[in-house]
This record gives sequence, structure tokens and C-alpha cells, in this order.
Amino acid sequence: MTTDFFADIPTIAYQGPDAADELAYRWYDKDRVVLGKRMEDHLRFAACFWHTFGWPGSDVFGAGTFNRPWHAGVNDSAAAAMKRSVAFDFFAKLDIPYYCFHDVDVMAEAHGVAEHRRNFAEAVDHLEQLQATSGRKLLWGTANLFGHPRFAAGGATNPDPEVFAFGAMQVRDALEATHRLGGQNYVLWGGREGYETLQNTDLKRELDNLGRFLRLVVEHKHKIGFTGTILIEPKPHEPTKHQYDFDTATVYGFLKRYGLEKEVMVNIEANHATLAGHTFEHEIATAGALGIFGSIDANRGDHQNGWDTDQFPNSVEEMTLAMLEILRAGGFTSGGFNFDAKVRRQSIDAVDLFHGHIGAIDIVARGLLCAAALIEDGRLDTIKAERYAGWDGPLGQQIGTLDLGGIADLAVDHAFDPRPRSGQQERIENLINRFI
Amino acid sequence: MTTDFFADIPTIAYQGPDAADELAYRWYDKDRVVLGKRMEDHLRFAACFWHTFGWPGSDVFGAGTFNRPWHAGVNDSAAAAMKRSVAFDFFAKLDIPYYCFHDVDVMAEAHGVAEHRRNFAEAVDHLEQLQATSGRKLLWGTANLFGHPRFAAGGATNPDPEVFAFGAMQVRDALEATHRLGGQNYVLWGGREGYETLQNTDLKRELDNLGRFLRLVVEHKHKIGFTGTILIEPKPHEPTKHQYDFDTATVYGFLKRYGLEKEVMVNIEANHATLAGHTFEHEIATAGALGIFGSIDANRGDHQNGWDTDQFPNSVEEMTLAMLEILRAGGFTSGGFNFDAKVRRQSIDAVDLFHGHIGAIDIVARGLLCAAALIEDGRLDTIKAERYAGWDGPLGQQIGTLDLGGIADLAVDHAFDPRPRSGQQERIENLINRFI
Amino acid sequence: MTTDFFADIPTIAYQGPDAADELAYRWYDKDRVVLGKRMEDHLRFAACFWHTFGWPGSDVFGAGTFNRPWHAGVNDSAAAAMKRSVAFDFFAKLDIPYYCFHDVDVMAEAHGVAEHRRNFAEAVDHLEQLQATSGRKLLWGTANLFGHPRFAAGGATNPDPEVFAFGAMQVRDALEATHRLGGQNYVLWGGREGYETLQNTDLKRELDNLGRFLRLVVEHKHKIGFTGTILIEPKPHEPTKHQYDFDTATVYGFLKRYGLEKEVMVNIEANHATLAGHTFEHEIATAGALGIFGSIDANRGDHQNGWDTDQFPNSVEEMTLAMLEILRAGGFTSGGFNFDAKVRRQSIDAVDLFHGHIGAIDIVARGLLCAAALIEDGRLDTIKAERYAGWDGPLGQQIGTLDLGGIADLAVDHAFDPRPRSGQQERIENLINRFI
Amino acid sequence: MTTDFFADIPTIAYQGPDAADELAYRWYDKDRVVLGKRMEDHLRFAACFWHTFGWPGSDVFGAGTFNRPWHAGVNDSAAAAMKRSVAFDFFAKLDIPYYCFHDVDVMAEAHGVAEHRRNFAEAVDHLEQLQATSGRKLLWGTANLFGHPRFAAGGATNPDPEVFAFGAMQVRDALEATHRLGGQNYVLWGGREGYETLQNTDLKRELDNLGRFLRLVVEHKHKIGFTGTILIEPKPHEPTKHQYDFDTATVYGFLKRYGLEKEVMVNIEANHATLAGHTFEHEIATAGALGIFGSIDANRGDHQNGWDTDQFPNSVEEMTLAMLEILRAGGFTSGGFNFDAKVRRQSIDAVDLFHGHIGAIDIVARGLLCAAALIEDGRLDTIKAERYAGWDGPLGQQIGTLDLGGIADLAVDHAFDPRPRSGQQERIENLINRFI
Repeated sequence: MTTDFFADIPTIAYQGPDAADELAYRWYDKDRVVLGKRMEDHLRFAACFWHTFGWPGSDVFGAGTFNRPWHAGVNDSAAAAMKRSVAFDFFAKLDIPYYCFHDVDVMAEAHGVAEHRRNFAEAVDHLEQLQATSGRKLLWGTANLFGHPRFAAGGATNPDPEVFAFGAMQVRDALEATHRLGGQNYVLWGGREGYETLQNTDLKRELDNLGRFLRLVVEHKHKIGFTGTILIEPKPHEPTKHQYDFDTATVYGFLKRYGLEKEVMVNIEANHATLAGHTFEHEIATAGALGIFGSIDANRGDHQNGWDTDQFPNSVEEMTLAMLEILRAGGFTSGGFNFDAKVRRQSIDAVDLFHGHIGAIDIVARGLLCAAALIEDGRLDTIKAERYAGWDGPLGQQIGTLDLGGIADLAVDHAFDPRPRSGQQERIENLINRFI
Repeated sequence: MTTDFFADIPTIAYQGPDAADELAYRWYDKDRVVLGKRMEDHLRFAACFWHTFGWPGSDVFGAGTFNRPWHAGVNDSAAAAMKRSVAFDFFAKLDIPYYCFHDVDVMAEAHGVAEHRRNFAEAVDHLEQLQATSGRKLLWGTANLFGHPRFAAGGATNPDPEVFAFGAMQVRDALEATHRLGGQNYVLWGGREGYETLQNTDLKRELDNLGRFLRLVVEHKHKIGFTGTILIEPKPHEPTKHQYDFDTATVYGFLKRYGLEKEVMVNIEANHATLAGHTFEHEIATAGALGIFGSIDANRGDHQNGWDTDQFPNSVEEMTLAMLEILRAGGFTSGGFNFDAKVRRQSIDAVDLFHGHIGAIDIVARGLLCAAALIEDGRLDTIKAERYAGWDGPLGQQIGTLDLGGIADLAVDHAFDPRPRSGQQERIENLINRFI
Repeated sequence: MTTDFFADIPTIAYQGPDAADELAYRWYDKDRVVLGKRMEDHLRFAACFWHTFGWPGSDVFGAGTFNRPWHAGVNDSAAAAMKRSVAFDFFAKLDIPYYCFHDVDVMAEAHGVAEHRRNFAEAVDHLEQLQATSGRKLLWGTANLFGHPRFAAGGATNPDPEVFAFGAMQVRDALEATHRLGGQNYVLWGGREGYETLQNTDLKRELDNLGRFLRLVVEHKHKIGFTGTILIEPKPHEPTKHQYDFDTATVYGFLKRYGLEKEVMVNIEANHATLAGHTFEHEIATAGALGIFGSIDANRGDHQNGWDTDQFPNSVEEMTLAMLEILRAGGFTSGGFNFDAKVRRQSIDAVDLFHGHIGAIDIVARGLLCAAALIEDGRLDTIKAERYAGWDGPLGQQIGTLDLGGIADLAVDHAFDPRPRSGQQERIENLINRFI
Repeated sequence: MTTDFFADIPTIAYQGPDAADELAYRWYDKDRVVLGKRMEDHLRFAACFWHTFGWPGSDVFGAGTFNRPWHAGVNDSAAAAMKRSVAFDFFAKLDIPYYCFHDVDVMAEAHGVAEHRRNFAEAVDHLEQLQATSGRKLLWGTANLFGHPRFAAGGATNPDPEVFAFGAMQVRDALEATHRLGGQNYVLWGGREGYETLQNTDLKRELDNLGRFLRLVVEHKHKIGFTGTILIEPKPHEPTKHQYDFDTATVYGFLKRYGLEKEVMVNIEANHATLAGHTFEHEIATAGALGIFGSIDANRGDHQNGWDTDQFPNSVEEMTLAMLEILRAGGFTSGGFNFDAKVRRQSIDAVDLFHGHIGAIDIVARGLLCAAALIEDGRLDTIKAERYAGWDGPLGQQIGTLDLGGIADLAVDHAFDPRPRSGQQERIENLINRFI
């Protein structure tokens, strides 16, 4: 099956900051070496199936606005195949190495277990073929345990054990498909793993079921020899009132509780960070400090709107701070930058999908360049090191060896009267702005 | 030293819902037995020194409005003594069993270590005497590691180890004073343990220092034989941009990381819960599920304002849901209801302090009565039990014994097609409203 | 066409607070006289078509969960008729006097102008018949200028004048239908009248087009002799980033700008108030003070979630404060309480629609009773009157006659040194709580 | 009186983007001509007295951290004079043309009317002298009607008419001083003109008193021949629960209600915009569209914190969008950019005041350059013009002449079926990013 949905659109190439062409990269120069690594290898970009090819442009208040041919009728085998083909055309034209999918994104609609498995298997065969032909690779796969009405009360946390089993089937199959397709990671996003009201919810039981489910997934990964990373994607709420994977710190506590902190890492989404009351860079820095930084779902929210707007990133300033933390956390190993972002509902043209991705890719590339320049400059790191120097000196060392009373006695014996020193925040902010 | 600050105000007594007198309890009947326990023993009310006797009615935009005699001049030994005496008059007139304090709340202002220790010791002597005379008890003590400029960049997380040592001195002394005064708990609130900007902050080092500090406190507690509970009070931000003890789930992960989850529990504040994006009852339920529920700082925020308004609780509806979770978590052991609440800046009269506390105490008492009635009614628990009944049946049991593949095969072999069942949220909400 | 969708459900009747039956009113006793008026006449309840009969239980992350027979296939003439009949069964079983609708809620799906008008006309004929048979009345009608893709960039504010004209057709027809059906009001909610980004938006032109559209509607109302009230429903955002009818104060300024403040009033929705950063009662009080209070869309949001959750009201405490302001604003004339609320996505049973409405109706009725009791008690009004008494005294009068210099000179000449007086907020809150 | 507080700091000069020196402008080149006007004349920078010289570095949770010599003792005549002299040193070293003040910022502390007037008069004499010596000018003056306890319940909206009179005295004197000092504007910020609880508030009376007060100020301005602009500064809340000047749209309605929309304009503060749920650029664009754009209080909030953080602007991206709207609104006439911003509480050194202002001034200058480049490029304007072109064509014209029925008939007769067109948001965002 062939498609000419993007026939008018060229393959996007690097043309430099002064390019006249809108359909070109100004900053993303995949072979440019930054801090000793090619940009492509630093950033490991992926496009996603769901927002870019699955979403019809609908919202809570209105119907779909996009006229995609694969949405014209029912989502049968032919429509799903067309969608997959168009998507791979897109990945190739963007010239990015990776893509991501949920099981239901790539397959024909199914009713019941058997049809689900049949349709998904058909899709995976096709994806394998498309990967081979196009050279595009799978950053991660996942299973959708939130869209179908059967998951209204959760997947792994559903009060009905049959739903847990149905979810186990989907995750088993999606994990195995991810393994077969050479996926680098497998993601779990628990969009319905939470509650609408505490009053009908057995919180402890649901947490324990969720912990057990995750342990089963980890065990299955090892059983089948999948060497990619298992990732949890935190989100505080929406669709539910409260989701269990609220933010990175909460996920860390959850992993510790179920003994999985060495097995599972986080896939951090910018808009989920801000919905949880954090900056994007905070979530990355926290994951880095706790040793569970995995991958990124790149998008942005709207600071005035309280829901997941999933817009393409367009702030170099914000991205520079995020890239700084990614680099400080050691950069990606199996993870990458997946664009979990959607064009606006009014951006109905095929070319708008390109504008969204090109702009975002360039923003991330600029963020990398700015962050690398700051690191190479060194002053930011020096300021920080000097601020904490006392901890590396004799007093800091001594405090490390004493108990509370001993340390308190130090203060008494030496009549400590420490004077505050400037935190230099404005100076630091100015310094950073010189590199943006 | 005697005081007649509250001379015109009678001791507050239970007079029943139809009482004409404003200075009376309508619902808090301390000897009334609810679910087998006296109200006083359920609720363990405490008033606090800081908001009620320390705060002068100032805010960021304006000076203090309260004319308290102990604020008339400098906070010297006599002023501090007057404050302590007035406070104990207040506790007695409210007829509640407990109070709470920070070291600096109860003592004359000090400059430097030696004076701090001298003034604090003088205060503790007086408090011991006042406790003996009045029969009032200490719910918890704590040290203020956030008000003085030396703590601008944190106490335990300060870049300067001298500040860490100064804080250790304060905490050691406050913990020992709490022990001597028979305190039931010792609290740590890390109001400056966080950051203003990630860019000058060594996140991992600060977390490790905070973890070590807490471990030292726990060790000291055991060393001195203090059998009360060590409590952390979560708060997401304010005064800092981000505080490390963001919410209960974050604190749990922190405790697990530093191996302290059996040693430390949480003191949950209603307004801190809502600032973190949670309901009050969510935080209690989470602490209950994770086994770290300790105590309550009762107040409320304003849903339209983004800062800690620390208002007195005045919603029976909200308090009923909170009391339900407290009762489900087993009720208080060492903890209690401390009113970390302040009258509004315009509520300048002495009697306003009584209106604030009386209203709040009655609200909590009504919440207890409503929650107890719901529990005794039993329907709410039955609805929940029926919802999860499948997990106690054969399929739920079987799932507990299988691996992911085995569970997935169940779904395949039996062609599971689970139908959603109503979550009955509206019915449940109506049921609860019948008891309020 | 008949329907037995609600066959198992009895007509809901008042049975008093201690009723055992869940499907009964405990507080809404329609003939009970409160402050000289029957409850039914005070509250003028309406149920709505869209959330209750149009919404399939879908959300942004998942498909519809409700199995309504009229949603089984396409929305053709028969399905639309079934929906209308079921809805009127519902209105009758709830025994409330009014209902509300958008044009597209009640009609078969249409493509293009002619079919729209034909299908809508058919629906209106049927509604007229159903009204006659059932005795139910129309509180208000409206036209949906936000759901169809043609309205993605707005109705009256669309950059394309053809869309403006299409919207004019819908509003003209819906206004005339409302007139014919004896509707008490006509509502405009501008869900797409706003922007996604300022950068593609001509703000001034859009405001002017919106102002002109509204003026045309008002003129048409007079031309056809419709004596009901034209109402604007404020909402700050969602679906757009920013909507022009942000809140009541904004709408007031808009009406003044276009000279319509005597012609148009507001339909205040509780959840829209909170999304705009206000309390529900604030919006009502503001409308009352500005003379534009019209009607109510009753629901509630979730204080932890940043989108329009449209839940049924379930707080007597909040509703009492809202009812106080409604009564202070003189109560309803043409307006009423429309339940713009939806049961939760998991509340999939037909009976859940009743639980939602019954609970809400009782909450509003309790709110009315509490507010009436507070008003009859009089103390609340007295406290307020005393607080402002100075303005009714000689100084207040004198100030009313002087210019700035004259008033300033008073302060100088008399050396005014006004002392703050207590605002008594806690006392007042306690007083209110005695009536809840 | 002389001062050497800033002795070590040079006068800040433009040194270009690659300057090595931290204490230099990289972008603000005051004589550079942009869009036909000198940068200094475009931007009209001012520094403020209150945050920069009045605030001691305190917050709600802690004492002042700054060791300013003028704060060492009481704020007497000598201390106030030192503060004024240091401030003028600062204005000169920054080399910006303007400053701003509240009456109480510049004067010795006063008790009562007479002392207030005496101390203020002394301060004004000194300011006049300092202006003459330094060549610095007054952007605006204002009176502080929120800090003193007497204003706890408001100034113009106070329930006590004596407070209204006291406020009238302060405003009269401050307005006359502003006139005498050649101020370009006079500002009113109603930080206490709002309510803590609706339940003790006569909303309508307070609005009417506020409206009358404003009218009296306008009349006095004309009486004394002051030709500057009267400005209201909107803020939604904080310190109060709700302030009457919530946002620009609310202020517009207020001005219309009291017939002052030709007399009074708005002073828009970035952080107040975001607290009200708007972007900074939205507030400017709204003021522009409504014809009331006056001046800017430049700062920024923290998107994760719900209070007025008043940080120095540091985002070129945000400032570019704001500058675009300022330029579209015609730029400043009497207004300018006042830095209503404070260094962080940990930024305790004198030099930090310079880092804060220098960074901010450069950000604004860069924003101006980016916005000017976008305007000169023209594509952004072209895209917008094309989007609305239909309104300038025959159909748009015709719609302008018809009534609702006539327009509706157009849709019917021509069977309009308008197709949505792409809003091109991502393309536009990319275009803007090319200029940043």
C-alpha cells in the first residue's frame, strides 16, 4: 500500500539559521558533534502515532476537524495499514530515527481478546516491514489501558480482576511486540490508574495491585530477554481526579515500596510536570538525583490552562534548562525525545504536522547547544561548586563523622554565627541568558 | 507574673447545638463517647504558640494590626514570660488538653548560640511550671530553622555547614526539651529546605544532607530515650519555590531512600495538602495506606488563593471526609489536632482568637460525629467492599498466583470481555450528605 | 413513539429528611413556602439535554461508556425523537418544571443549512408537543456555535464571515424556536469566542464583531416580540486558551462598551466561576451589584483539577452562600437553576442520572433553607450594617458632598487617626455554620 | 548628605553582546534607534523605591536578610534622607531616566496626619533637589493606602469614612507632589480595596465608594493642572482574597460604570496578569483594544507559585510578545517600564540590585529588538491580515449592513458551508522563534 498524503512535502534537511525555507531545520544538524557526540545520538528524536496520526482534532466541546483519509470510515484493516504507511512516510520525511506507539494506535479496531490479538499481530508484522524498509526504529511501545470503556475504572487497579487480566494480555503482547521490533524501552502510563472519588476507592489495595502488576511486567521482561528499559510516565491527574503516578518523587517512593527502583525508570513529560506543580527541569533533576531518569515526552502546557494541552515545545529558554539537567543526569542511554505533542485543533493541514515537529526539533537542538555552551563555559558549575565548598572542607568532613549531639556541641563550642551569603540568583540568570 | 489579657472571657464549655452564647461549644462535648472513645481522646486538640501568640497580624503588604501587650517593645525575658502565661490562660479557657511550640516562639530573642540556649532554657523551665499548674500537655515541640536570616538558604540543606551545625544545636535542644516536657511528638518542618532556583542548587547533595540530618535526629531520640514520634510536615513550596518535603508521597519516598520509613511519620496540614494539588483527605488516606500517618495541623486554605492562608477550618463537609480517613487509619496514637491556623489580619480583638478556635473545634467535632455515623451506618463500607469483591473471589485469588503470561492466558482462554459497572459516585455522595 | 428507558424508576417525590428511599427528595418540597414563596417558584429547576442525554460518557482519553439506545446508531430522525421522549420522561419523573437545550442537542444530525433548518424544525414541533403533554416548560434555548468543525475558530468572532452568517442563521432560528416554545430566556455561551494564540488574532476586530452580533440578537428579540431575557454565560477558557466572556465583571465591561448593559444579563455557572479564579457566590454578588444577574448553571468543579468537571453540586455550605447572594440580588425573575452537570463517566446506569439530579436538587433546597434562615435570623445583616454605619452618619454624608481637597482637609483639621475595628470574620463564619 | 553604598560599582554602560564585564549592558544601547525612536525613549525605564530600597529582605516566614545602613535603626529623618540619596546614586549608576515612589517609601515614619504631611513635605523637597542634581525624572508617584493597620479594611473602600478621608489626604498630597516633581503619571494600586470575606462586605457600596474616590482624584488632577495620566494598577488578589481591580477587563468595566474610561488608564504588571489567569501580553493587548493602555510594571511571577514573586523579568521570549503588543498599542506616551521587582531574599549584596536591574533592562531591550524585527519583517502581520481578509471583502461589508434575519437569510439563500482554514499556530510560533 502506498500513500501520497505528504506528497508535496520534501524531506526536511538542515539548512542553517538563516534558511529562507520554512520546511527546513535551522538548528538540528544531526551530524554536528556537541560535547563529543552527534546531535542525533544526543537527542534520539521520536514521533508518536497517537497525537499525530490517531487524534482527529476533536476536543471535549467539538468534533474532529482534521480530514485524514484513514479516518474517513471505520478503522478497519485497510485504514490501519494506510495510517501506518503514512506515519512511516512522515518519520522518513522528518528524518528522525525513532517512533513510538500504543497497541491500539497502530491496529484496526477490535472487539474482544481474540480480535485484539489478531489485529495487533497484523499491525506488528507491518511495522516490522516498515522499519526494515525505512530504517526507522522503535523508541518505545506501550499498551493503551485507558481508552476503552472497560478501563473506565482502571487497568491494573480496576476493581474487577477480569480487567486486570485483560490488561495483562495487552501488556504482555505489547511488550513482546516491542521486544520483537527492537524497541529500546517499554512504557507504562497509568491514565486510569487513580480515582475519581476516594469514597468508592480502596487506595491500599489499588496501590498493591499496581505494584504487583509492575513487578509482573518486570519479571516478564527478563523472561523473554527484553533488554530495553521499563519506564513509568508520571502524571498527576487528568483523566482521573488523582493518578497514582503523580510525579517523579511519588513514582520513586512507589518503586521503593515494591522493590523496583533498580528495574524501572521514568519517562518525564513536560506538561505532566507542570500539571503536578513542578518545572520540567525539576522533574528531570529529581529523576537524576534519585537515579531513575529514563526518557522524555517532549511537549509543553499552557501556563494559564489547567489541562494537558500537549503543545509542541517552543521555548529555547525552558528547553535549555531541561537539557542542562539531562546532560547532568548523563544524557540518554535507552531513552530519547519523543514528541508527545499535538498540533492545535485549528491546524488542520498536513503541513501543520511538519511545522509542529520542525519547530520543536529546532527548539530542542537549540536547547542542547545552549546547555552545552554553558557547560563548556564552566562558570555556572563553578558558582555552584563554590557555594557548597564548605561541605568539602574540614568542617563539612567533621560533621560527616559526628552524631547530632557532637555536631550541636561544635556550634556551642565555637559559638558559630554563620552569616548568609548571596545566592546570586540574578547574576546566575543573567549568565544563563548570555548563552540563549 | 499574671495576666488579665483574657479576663473578660469565660472558660468555654459545651452547651449543645442550640446554645445562645457565642463563646460556647455546640458540638465538642469532650466526655461524649463516640465509637467507644471520649471525644477528647479521639481529637486530642492543641493550640499553637506561633500564629496565636507570635504573629502580630502583619502580611507581606502591611504591618501588624494586633495590639498585643507582649509585642509592645522588644521580645525580652519579661515579654516572653508574659506571652507564655497568656498562652496558658488561653489553653485553659479553651479547655483543650494540648499545645505546640517552636523554640523561638516561647523564648526571648537571642543573638548567637549561647544566648539562644540560655533564653530557651529559661522558657522551658517556665513551660514546665505552667504545664504543672494548668494540667495542659505538650502535643509536640519543634525548632524554627527558617525565620532567622542565617537559615535563608536552608537549615539541614544549607550550603554552609556552620548553619547545619547551628540547626543541629537548635534541634538537639528542642528535642530534649520536648522529651523533658513530656511531649508526645517532635516535628520537623523544612520551610527553607528546598530551593529558590535549581541553578544554584546541588539537589542530590541537599537531599543527602537532609536525609542524614533526619537520621541523626532519630538516633538522638533513641539515645535520650524519647518515646514520642518524630514527624515530618510536608509542604510543597512557600517560602521557597520548591520544598523537598513536597507531599506525603514524596516524604514516603524520601524516608524509604534513607531507611527511615519505620521511624518517622507525617504531620499533615490541610492547607499544605491543597497547595500540593491534593485534598486534605487524600493526604491522610495516602499516609494511612503507606503506614506513616502521624498527626494533623488543622487549618484550611482558600481555593482561589495560591498561598498558605492558614485559616481556621470551617467546613463540616471537608472535615467529615478527613475524619473518615483518620478513623480508617486507626485514629491518632501520639498525634492530635493542632490548630496551625491564624485569625484574619482584621480580626484584631482578643475574643477573635476564641471565635477562631471555638468554630474550628466544633467543626472537627461535627466531622467526627458525621464520620462515626457513616461508619456505624455501614453502607459506605459495604458499597466499597462489593465493588472489589471480585478480588476476594476465585479469579482474584488465581491472579495472585500467576505470572504475567499466565494471567494474560486466562484472558485469552476465557475470552474475557469485562463490562464496566457503575462507580455510583453520585449515589455515594448523596449517602454521605445524609449524614452531614 | 414511546420509551421505557426509565421504566423502573418512580416519579421522585418529597419524603422528608429521614426517608429510607434513595430515589426521593429529602429537602426539596416544592410547595413548601420559604420567605413567602413556594420552593418551586424560588428555584425554578431545569434539567439539560446535552450532558444528560447527549453526552455518551466519553472524555479526551477514552470512548463513551454509556449505552444509551439513542446513541446505538447514527443520530437520525428516529434516534433524535427517542432522545427527546426519554428526556421528557426524565423531566416528568424528576418533577421539575423546566428544561434547557441547544439546537443540535434535540435534532437529527444535519449537513448544511437546509438540513439543519429542516431537522431543527422537526425537533421543535416535537418539543412543543411534549411540552403540551407533559406540562414541562422551557427555561432557555440556545444554539451550539462551538461543536461543529466550522466553528473551530469561533462563531461570531470567526475570521470567516460565512461562519458568522451560519451562526446568525442558527441563533435566529433557535431564538425564534425559544420564543415559540415559551422559553423564559435565551442564552449565548461563546465557547469558541476567544483565541488559541494572540499571534493569529485580531483582538479588537473580534471583540467588535462579538459586540455587533450581540446587538443584532437583541434587536431581533425585540423585533419578534420575545420578552424573555438574553443571557451571556461567562467562562474564562476551555475549550480556547482565552474566552472573551471571561467572567461577570468582564462581561459587564463588554456590555457597557456596546451599550447593552440594560438588555443582557448573565447566566452564571459555578464551575466557570472557579475556573476564573472566583467563588460561585462572588460571581452572583458581582452580577447583583452591577444589575445583570440573570440565571444559574448549577454544577461544581473540582478544586484540584483545572478543567470544567461539571459535577453535580453537593456542598450545602457552598450553596448556602450562593443562595444568600441570589436572594440578596432579589431572586430569579426569568432565570432559574439549570443543572449543567454530568454524572461521572463511570456512572453508567440510568439510575445514576437520578442520583445526580436528586442529590443536587436537595443540596440547592437545603441551601435555600439555610440562607432563608440566616436572613430571617437577621444577625448577619446587622453585623454588616453596623460595620458600615459610619457612612450613613454625619461624616459619611459630609464626605459625599466634598471634593478631594475638602475631604483631605477634614482629615487634617480633625487630625483623624482612625483605629481598625475587627472584621469579625471567624465570628461570622461560626454564625453561618450554625444554620447549616 | 553623601553616601558610598554603591562606591565600588561603576556607572553601567552599553558594551555590546560580547562584553566580558558583568556590570554592563549587552543589549540596552540607549541611543540606538529602533523603529525610528531611541531605545531610551521607547522604553522609558524607571527603578522603584519600595522593593529596591524599602524592602529589608523579609518574607512571611522570616526576617529581613539585607543589611542596609538606612534600616539599621528607626526610619527617622536621617535614615530616610540616606535612603533617598542612595536611591538616586543607584538611578544614576544604572543610567536610566526615571524612578517611582509611594509617599511612605521616601519619608520618615509618621504617626498621624500632621507628622505624615511634615515628613512627606521634607522628603519631596529633597527629591526635587536630587532630581535637579541628577537629571533623573519621576515616572510616577503614588500613595500607600495598604501598609498601615488603619488600611487593613481598605482605603477608599473602608467601612470607616475617617479612613477614606485619611486616604484622601495622602492621595491629595501625593498627587500634588507628583505634579510638583514633574511626574508623568499618578498611579493608584488598590491592594486593600477588596475583601477577605463577602460575608462582612457591602460589595455595591464599596464599589461605589471606590468609583467616587477615583472621580474625585480625576477632578483634583484637573483642578491643579496636572497633565500626567491617572493610572490604575490591576491585581486580582493578594493581600486580599479578592481585589476590585482584578484585571484590565474588570478595570475597564469599572471605568465605564463611573464614566472614567477617557480619564484613567491601566498600569499593567506582568505578575499581576499571571495571577489573574492571563498572559502579560494578553493584558497589554486588551488594554490596547479598549483604549486604556498606560504603563508597565515589569517583573515576572513563578509559574509554579501562586503568589506575587515580583522577580525581575528574564525571558526574552515572553518580553518579545509583550513588546509586540506595546508597539501595536502605539508604544508609551506618558508611561514607561518601571521595575516593580525585587531581588531574591538570598541576594543580599548591594551588587545583586545591579544584577537584577541590568539583566532585566537587557531582557526588555532584547524584547524590543526582536519585536521590532518581527514588525519590520512583516510576515506576521500579513498572516493575520490574510486570515481576516473576508471581513474586508464584499460579504464582510454586506454583513455590516444587515440585521440578524438578513444575515441569516444570506446563509440560507447561498447555502453557506464554510470550511475551516488552518490557524497556522505552529508555523507562526516558528516564525516568531526565528527572531528571538
